[in-house]
Amino acid sequence: MSRLTASYQVYGKAGSFEKKAEGIALGLTIGSWTDLPLLEQEQLKKHKGEVVSVEESPEVPHPLKPDEIKAHITVSYPSANFSADFPAILTTVFGKLSLDGEVKLLDLDFEEDLLKQFPGPRFGIDGIRGLLNVHGRPLVMSIFKGVIGRDLNYLTAQLRQQALGGVDLVKDDEILFDNPLTPFEQRITAAKAVLQEVYAETGHRTLYAVNLSGRTSQLRDKARRARELGADALLFNVHAYGLDVLQELAEDNDIGLPLMAHPAFSGAFTSSPFYGVAAPLALGKLTRYAGADFSLFPSPYGSVAMEKTAALALGEQLTNESLLKQAFPVPSAGIHPGLVPLLVNDFGIDSIINAGGGVHGHPDGAAGGGKAFRQAVDAVLKNQTLENASEQQPELKTALELWG
Amino acid sequence: MSRLTASYQVYGKAGSFEKKAEGIALGLTIGSWTDLPLLEQEQLKKHKGEVVSVEESPEVPHPLKPDEIKAHITVSYPSANFSADFPAILTTVFGKLSLDGEVKLLDLDFEEDLLKQFPGPRFGIDGIRGLLNVHGRPLVMSIFKGVIGRDLNYLTAQLRQQALGGVDLVKDDEILFDNPLTPFEQRITAAKAVLQEVYAETGHRTLYAVNLSGRTSQLRDKARRARELGADALLFNVHAYGLDVLQELAEDNDIGLPLMAHPAFSGAFTSSPFYGVAAPLALGKLTRYAGADFSLFPSPYGSVAMEKTAALALGEQLTNESLLKQAFPVPSAGIHPGLVPLLVNDFGIDSIINAGGGVHGHPDGAAGGGKAFRQAVDAVLKNQTLENASEQQPELKTALELWG
Ligand SMILES: [Mg+2]
Ligand SMILES: [Mg+2]
Repeated sequence: MSRLTASYQVYGKAGSFEKKAEGIALGLTIGSWTDLPLLEQEQLKKHKGEVVSVEESPEVPHPLKPDEIKAHITVSYPSANFSADFPAILTTVFGKLSLDGEVKLLDLDFEEDLLKQFPGPRFGIDGIRGLLNVHGRPLVMSIFKGVIGRDLNYLTAQLRQQALGGVDLVKDDEILFDNPLTPFEQRITAAKAVLQEVYAETGHRTLYAVNLSGRTSQLRDKARRARELGADALLFNVHAYGLDVLQELAEDNDIGLPLMAHPAFSGAFTSSPFYGVAAPLALGKLTRYAGADFSLFPSPYGSVAMEKTAALALGEQLTNESLLKQAFPVPSAGIHPGLVPLLVNDFGIDSIINAGGGVHGHPDGAAGGGKAFRQAVDAVLKNQTLENASEQQPELKTALELWG
Repeated sequence: MSRLTASYQVYGKAGSFEKKAEGIALGLTIGSWTDLPLLEQEQLKKHKGEVVSVEESPEVPHPLKPDEIKAHITVSYPSANFSADFPAILTTVFGKLSLDGEVKLLDLDFEEDLLKQFPGPRFGIDGIRGLLNVHGRPLVMSIFKGVIGRDLNYLTAQLRQQALGGVDLVKDDEILFDNPLTPFEQRITAAKAVLQEVYAETGHRTLYAVNLSGRTSQLRDKARRARELGADALLFNVHAYGLDVLQELAEDNDIGLPLMAHPAFSGAFTSSPFYGVAAPLALGKLTRYAGADFSLFPSPYGSVAMEKTAALALGEQLTNESLLKQAFPVPSAGIHPGLVPLLVNDFGIDSIINAGGGVHGHPDGAAGGGKAFRQAVDAVLKNQTLENASEQQPELKTALELWG
């Protein structure tokens, strides 16, 4: 019978952790054990949580409580205890436990039986590359900027400039919802027309990820409608809706569109060193299992950086060997062309270089910004330094002069 | 045009907060302002976020960064910028901002136009009292204990004992999902039969809140089926699903059942003093607006207590004057009969006294535990001390001897 193993970081007094771990294993499953008659123990054993490991780190004292240290606890839960869905899993492994003091959920290890219940990405990295027919290099994405309160003409003009810059994807601003000036369906069809023009003019294909929003029960029909209208991909603020909602979108064969998970709201539960859920688990593994083809997360560069180890671990969770397809890591924020060598070094070819200001802020406009990024990518793949490449690449040169 | 005002707690260097506030107000709405041509400013003004207030607290230094202090920032957002649903609202006011360092969302102030888009509780405190025909005293609730891996006979026997103790409500363990031993529908019908027996024997009415679980798109039909089967109420792990999911359940006239929100998983985003969402907002106001008739939250007593001010504020958010109905505050964990005077003092008559161990751990069993709580409530309402009352109330006496 399969088990799900949860890894937790806890703080407490040295020597207190075995008891805490037993309390978790028992309290979050059958509740009582030692005082049960043998016959009941036999019946309940298959439902009992088990402590797998307890590791104290006495060298890591609590920054504010000198008598406490950090520890790692792992507990396994029988899959028989919950339905194979994320709400049940999270309620079990981090339900009341999330309220139980300084406990942070670091990882969840799914045995194959349980993992098979989850779809993973429908397209995955290979499928997205197939749609674009782009192989062997990172993809480049840009985001709309300042489109709230703007009309369709503004949006499509901005889209055209980004596409002319050679970006592979353009995503909606995640705070652009259905609205009278740029309604969801019209955004799709207008964008499609523009991108088809650019393709006809240049042979370059750009995909547009429109923001799927609104009431939960209406998402499915809106997504199906998007498919009918020829949408390329859907941006989705998964953490404002629920992982299970994303999963249902991924599983729906009548939607069948690439799903791009935005990290909006996730900082509420991933940022604290003491509480919540580790970002590599929340935005990496679980977002992938739930069916995102792309997962955006704060880059480890720039002013509000995700800690580097965590960002790399997140990328790894999206792309490591699994039953389920890989999802594209999309480190975001503070990205400019000068960072491309670092990005490729850190996140590999199978990642997405995503910029807003780093595209729109280019002195030659968004088209120049896109070109600068594509030139930087080409340079890195040829093992050229950006400086050398910039001698022949004016847009890249301008970008390096501005941002370094 | 109506606006939504968000209150944030931030940390940073003294004097840095005006700039940060402007960055939030602009960045989470139209993006650019000062460099826009006047005509565009005219067009976009209605979409621009505005800083309402910035208050530095130099007397509150950051516990770990001596050069930083705490500040409160309030920003108002035009309702025109988002669809009137919680995913859009949270993505706007705390989307990327949740990833932007030490920012905590403290409150959201809804103007009437926007508030009217939300259902609030269908029954509310008055409606629940009407169902029970219990007025003028706090309600008493107990929870199932150790029912995972147990069969229906075990569950109904435990239910019977709790009902015989005179509790008004019994809730499922939130980690009991649909399972072969106690399937959702059978739990409802078996519980109904038992509670009808107890009613026939004693004239006392107990309601049972069954745990609504499973895939998001199936919740509606399961809830409607629960209604058909005569379920009393639904327990719902809202924070593992999404506020909008709760809201859709509340709005569905073919469900029409009291909804009990469990705080499972919420600690992931409410516990940190630096990040996330304040509990009075998340488990209080928003859970009420989304339609919960009851909201459970960690009590301010016991070993892993919610800080008292926050717990009281949470209760206040559930019950204060509003367009929307009141929801029952249910402070949970560490509750025993001896705490009833404090509970009534802190949370008032319109609250629920909720206990697990404090009922089942009574030396006379769950029935004794329930009686002890009811006796304590009676005493408080008569302005008797529990000690005095216990002279005539043996179950209460036993409880006080055990727990104080
Ligand atoms: Mg964005
Ligand atoms: Mg419970």
